[in-house]
Formats: sequence, C-alpha cells, structure tokens
Amino acid sequence: MQELEIKGKKAKQAARFLNNADASAKNAVLTNSAKALLLQTDFILSENKKDLDSAEENGVKGALLDRLRLTSDRIEGMAKGLQQIALLEDPIGEVLSMKTRPNGLIIGKMRVPMGVIGIIYEARPNVTADAFGLCLKSGNATILRGGKEAINSNKAIVKVLQKAVAESGFPESCVQLVEDTSRESAVAMMKLNDYLDLLIPRGGAGLIQTVVKNSSVPVIETGVGNCHVFVDKEADFDKAIAITLNAKTQRPGVCNAAETLLVHKDIAKEFLPKMAEELAKKNVEMRGCPAVCSLVPQAIEATNEDWDTEYLDFILAMKVVDSASDAIEHIHQHGTMHSEAIITENYTTAQRFLKEVDAAAVYVNASTRFTDGEEFGFGAEIGISTQKLHARGPMGLVEMTSTKYIIYGNGQVR
Amino acid sequence: MQELEIKGKKAKQAARFLNNADASAKNAVLTNSAKALLLQTDFILSENKKDLDSAEENGVKGALLDRLRLTSDRIEGMAKGLQQIALLEDPIGEVLSMKTRPNGLIIGKMRVPMGVIGIIYEARPNVTADAFGLCLKSGNATILRGGKEAINSNKAIVKVLQKAVAESGFPESCVQLVEDTSRESAVAMMKLNDYLDLLIPRGGAGLIQTVVKNSSVPVIETGVGNCHVFVDKEADFDKAIAITLNAKTQRPGVCNAAETLLVHKDIAKEFLPKMAEELAKKNVEMRGCPAVCSLVPQAIEATNEDWDTEYLDFILAMKVVDSASDAIEHIHQHGTMHSEAIITENYTTAQRFLKEVDAAAVYVNASTRFTDGEEFGFGAEIGISTQKLHARGPMGLVEMTSTKYIIYGNGQVR
Repeated sequence: MQELEIKGKKAKQAARFLNNADASAKNAVLTNSAKALLLQTDFILSENKKDLDSAEENGVKGALLDRLRLTSDRIEGMAKGLQQIALLEDPIGEVLSMKTRPNGLIIGKMRVPMGVIGIIYEARPNVTADAFGLCLKSGNATILRGGKEAINSNKAIVKVLQKAVAESGFPESCVQLVEDTSRESAVAMMKLNDYLDLLIPRGGAGLIQTVVKNSSVPVIETGVGNCHVFVDKEADFDKAIAITLNAKTQRPGVCNAAETLLVHKDIAKEFLPKMAEELAKKNVEMRGCPAVCSLVPQAIEATNEDWDTEYLDFILAMKVVDSASDAIEHIHQHGTMHSEAIITENYTTAQRFLKEVDAAAVYVNASTRFTDGEEFGFGAEIGISTQKLHARGPMGLVEMTSTKYIIYGNGQVR
Repeated sequence: MQELEIKGKKAKQAARFLNNADASAKNAVLTNSAKALLLQTDFILSENKKDLDSAEENGVKGALLDRLRLTSDRIEGMAKGLQQIALLEDPIGEVLSMKTRPNGLIIGKMRVPMGVIGIIYEARPNVTADAFGLCLKSGNATILRGGKEAINSNKAIVKVLQKAVAESGFPESCVQLVEDTSRESAVAMMKLNDYLDLLIPRGGAGLIQTVVKNSSVPVIETGVGNCHVFVDKEADFDKAIAITLNAKTQRPGVCNAAETLLVHKDIAKEFLPKMAEELAKKNVEMRGCPAVCSLVPQAIEATNEDWDTEYLDFILAMKVVDSASDAIEHIHQHGTMHSEAIITENYTTAQRFLKEVDAAAVYVNASTRFTDGEEFGFGAEIGISTQKLHARGPMGLVEMTSTKYIIYGNGQVR
C-alpha cells in the first residue's frame, strides 16, 4: 500500500532525528504542541462535528457517540496530558549497567528508542494526542491509524500537531496519520515490518485479537481482564468487603475491574451473606455456584460460561473454593493473566499467592483497580500489556524503549 | 494439529510446576541430565548413526553432514554445557525494584519465567540439550522442533533428558520434542498461541524470516549480521588493522563477523594499502568502491549488491566515505542492526558513533566478534536478537524471563 510505504519511509527518517534529540528539545515540542491544540480548539471542534454528524446519521448513539465527541474541556485535557508528559523524566540514554570484562572491554546497556511505533485504535480521538506525546517523549516516531468514525477529528489533531512539531524544528513526520481507514490499510500496517519496530493495538478485544493473529510486526497485546478477588479463610472481612466492592463497582467498564469473587469454604457461610448485602446495595447482579446460591438468596445460578466472561458491568460471578490451591487453579484456568488479588492475613498464603499466580499484577489486600500507569507512578501509560514479552502490566515511557549494548574498547580482538 | 495440542497442554502444566521450583531443585535436574547424557552416549550415537546414514543416502555431505554428526566428544560437550548452566545464577524471583506509593501500596517488579518457550531449529542435534538446559534453568518448559534430518538423534536425546527429569521429580514434559517434522508441524507451532509464550527460531536466514512472517506467537528474531568496521580519520592504524583482520577472518562464518570496511577519505591513501597487504596475507577477497580500487591493486570492483551481502566468507566489501556522518548513513542503509564498530582516537566522534548508530552492539576500538553471550559474561546464550522488542543482542538466561508486578497492600481501594 503506497500511503503506508511513503509514511513508513518518512517515519524511519524522523526516528533517526528523534534518536539524536535531547530531552529539552523534545519537551519544547510537547509544550508547543499543547499550546497549539488549545489555540486550534475551534478548528478541531468543527472537524469533530463532521464526525459526530455522520455518526448520528449512521445511527450511532450512547457511549460510542460519547467516545467520539470532543469538547473544549476534552481538548484542554489532551493539552494538559502533553504538558504532563513533558514533565516526566526522559528514559533515553540511561545506561542500565556498565561492567568491565576481564579483557578490559567496558560493556554497558543503554536505553534507546524503539524507532517507529504504529498504533491501531478505534473511535476515541484523544488517543491521537496521547499516543503522539508518549511516543515523542520516548524518542519514537509514530504512525497512527484511528477508526474511520473519527477520521476528520484525527486529521485535524494531527495537522495541528505536525505544524507545532515542524515549528519546533523537528520533522513533521514524527507523527503521521494513515488517512486510508479501509480494512486493507490496517492489514497492510500489520505487515509493515520494514518500517515499524512495534505495533500496539488499543481498543476492544476483537481489534486486539485481529492484530495479534495477523501481524508480522512485533505486537504488544493489551487489554482483556478477567480478574479475580480471592477471599481466603484468614481474610479480614472488612478489607475483603471494601476491596471486592471497589474492584467490582468503582468503574466496572475497565479491564482491571474484578469479574469473579472466589471465597474459601471455611468462611463462606459467615462471609457471603455480608458481602452479598453490600453488593446488593450497589445493584450488582450475583451469579453463583450452587454453594453460593444456597447461602445468598439474591444470587442466580452461574453457568460455566460465567467463569470466562469479562462482564465490564455490574455483574459478579461468585464461587466457593475448597482451598487456596483451588483458587489459584481456578484463576489459571479462567483468568486472563491481568490482575489478581488475595485477601488474607496469613503470611505464608499471601507469599504463596504472589509467587504462584501468573498474572501481570498480583495483589495482597488491595483492589485490582490499581493496575494502571498513573497509580503505579509512571505518570502516563500507553496501555496495559497482558503478554509476557517485553512489557507486562501498565506500560509507561520506559516500556516504549529498547536497549543497545555500547562497548568501549582499546584495541581488543578475539 | 493433535500432537502439538497435547504437548502444548502438558507443557503448560510443566510450566506451572517450574514456576514454583527453586534453584537447587532445577540445578539437580541439570546435573542429573548431564550424567544421563554421558551414560547414554552409546545409545545416542547409535541413533545418530541412523540420521547420518540416511543423510548420506540423500547425498548430504561436507559442513551439513558435520553439523549433524555427534561424537562422544560432542556429547561430553553437551553434558558440560548443562553442568555450566547449573552453575549460573538463577534469574527467577529477583525483585527488580520495590517502591512504596503515597497510598502505602508497596509495588515491586519480580522476574518470573516466560512459561512455555518453543524452539524451531535445523540440523544441529546439540541445540536440543542446550535449549533444554537454558529453558529449564530460567523456569520455562520447552517444546523443541528440530529438523527432520536429525529426528532420530533428537528423539534419543530428549528421551534421555525426559527420563533424567522425571527421575529428579520434575514432570518429564518440561522438555518435549515435536516428532512430526513435516512443514505443517512448523506452521502449527507458529500459531500455537494458546500454549506458547515465545517462539525462538535458530538457524539460517530463510528459517528465521519464515517464522517472523508467519508466527502469531511472539517471536524473537535472531541472526543475520551485515556488520561494519569504520576506520575514522583519527584511527590508530595498528588497532584498525588488527580489529579489521580479526572481525573478518577469525571466524568468517558467524553473524558477528564484519562484512564491510568503511574508511575515512582523509586517511584512505595511507591506510588502505597497509590494510590490503594484511588482508591479502589471509587470502581475503577484496571488493571495493572505485576509490578503493584505485588505491588497492588486489581489489575488484564492488557492485551495489555487495553492500547488502552477508558473505560469511573470506570476502570483504570496502568503501571510502567522506565523513563519520557518511559512515553512519551507510551503516543505517545497509546494516542489519547487529554489531558495528568505529576505530578512532577522537573522543567526540566515538561518543557520537555510540549514540547515533542503531544496532544491538556498538563498539569503539574493538572487534565486532565480541557480540556473544559468553564474551559479554552471560555464561551461555540462546541466540543473538536483532529485534528491538524484549531482548536485543546476546540473550542469556535473563532474556528468557518475563516480569510481574507484586503488590503488598493493607486494604487499599481506589
């Protein structure tokens, strides 16, 4: 596909420039870009209106329409996001370790940009500015491919950003938008190995799986979270109730919300009615195993499918388990290796859960909702990786970098 | 494919076991496996003979036949390799950083196994024991798929290893061999996302590219090295000659050998005849740009193709460049981001080369031949990554691991 070939080449050149740019110059680009977004608010909103109009014509409404909508507040949010990224520490150039070998070679591992990062995303136009900011700060050129619903908004935002980038003395191709929003352009991007060093899909499970299955460019898989809270027999009930409620109801539509509650059989009779009472107050639909249903009148019977469902809603699957081992087994069979929590006061059980549970984030006595770049102190995040290669869990600037070995010699040969 | 499905499931179970195994138990498995290989030398050699016989029937000879051949010395080498891996530090369980957040959450990043690692390789049966050892020590189960030429040897080695593993109290499916060596089994392995966390191809460029292009399982690309030595105008000639000779001739058939010599124009007239004299003594064929040919009578004219060729032979492409910038530009256009060296006494030029050249290993005044796990002090390596995701350069045990966040709370909610 010609558009991608041309943009790929330009991105590679921009990446060379960015590799050599220092932190203060990159920060100036980010600050100038933030200002430009604010100054061009009217232009961006008028272009966004075109997207909203055609979406409404096509019968789009509710949350989907809301995700597409920009307001001056949201544009201000985008600008603030870029300013915050400017304040973060530059990860590039750090030498992670430097050792002298017996032959006198001094070998260090230096943090360097990835090069060119492709982002495939759906309808939210604010991802455009966000992804640009994180990529630029980490020294990477970026090629963005948003959804066709947001094409006018995305074009407007990228136009404003490119102008600000160029006026700051950087190549405007530090950020580029794929204007062809056909399925073909997405497929072509997944095969753009000559120009892309990394491809990150951001959006629903369908998009992510399509990219994982079809991309020959290295991918970081983000997203799906079928997360569990396990209430051990030695749990503090107050903590267990507060954490379960928070993990389920504070924001049920996100990947780090809990979907299943596992309860140790020894405390089920005492704990479950109390827990159910609080869940009922928050209008959470409870779907339980037979043991749960016998203790919780509000619960309806769960099917096997429930254990594998990411509801993203006020619904909670609930199961009584015989032991911590059974809880860990259930998590491994049904979890998506995202975020898993145990509530216990027992030291050995807690340490065992931390060691044995294979997930991006494993918690003792805290809500799964903390799996997030801001909460982890990264300042910003590009997504939450659920794969094991390269990055796992919330991905901040550091996760958008690679390394290279630098070797200082004085004539060594083998 | 049924064989892979069954082996994938077993490998996942073994991976759970390995995740929880401690270092001393894993080391005992490695030591017992080494002993078993030595004890079963006759059995392995007799199975290897079958492979050698059918290879000879099929007209295989020379280096290819040699790669397939096992001897008691080579089996001893395999056993020693396992013993050495047992002596290396276990990377698993290390907590890379642990910080307390303002809300009291204590968040650490723990090194954990990848899970299940697939290795696709070609005719060398010693890879079988080597890959098993590195995977087991780093807590990973492994599924091996070797070439059909070595199937009897590989089956014998894996049989011996599995028995030793089981007798050490570990599941024998810590290591498994794909016995179907058809093209279909390789393709099925590249799509085995449900069971494989990582796939590493080891072999020639053809194999590696096939895996990179077709695998939906995350891949680490290893291998191809079109490496350069750049002799700057401020080079020490003695170092430049020694390093170029070493990088080209010490072992020309490997990926970190140099393929092109770039020489700054200001010293070309003085340097090139001296260099050529030494290269001629080692019977290196020289292919030069017109400027080189005018200074070096032994040189023949290079074509454009030469700048992109990994000769893996006693052939050197040679080019005169106008500046360090031109050298860096040439490297980016023609290099494979493997190993690149500058020879210079100028501090600023050296630092600039280290920063700007985008390769897995960048050298000042040392031979590219040092890009190697042993030379870097890793004790052993599974390959040399030329991609930027996850691992870059020589991959030791640490590069075969992932991480997870462990979070200690005391009731925190959002």
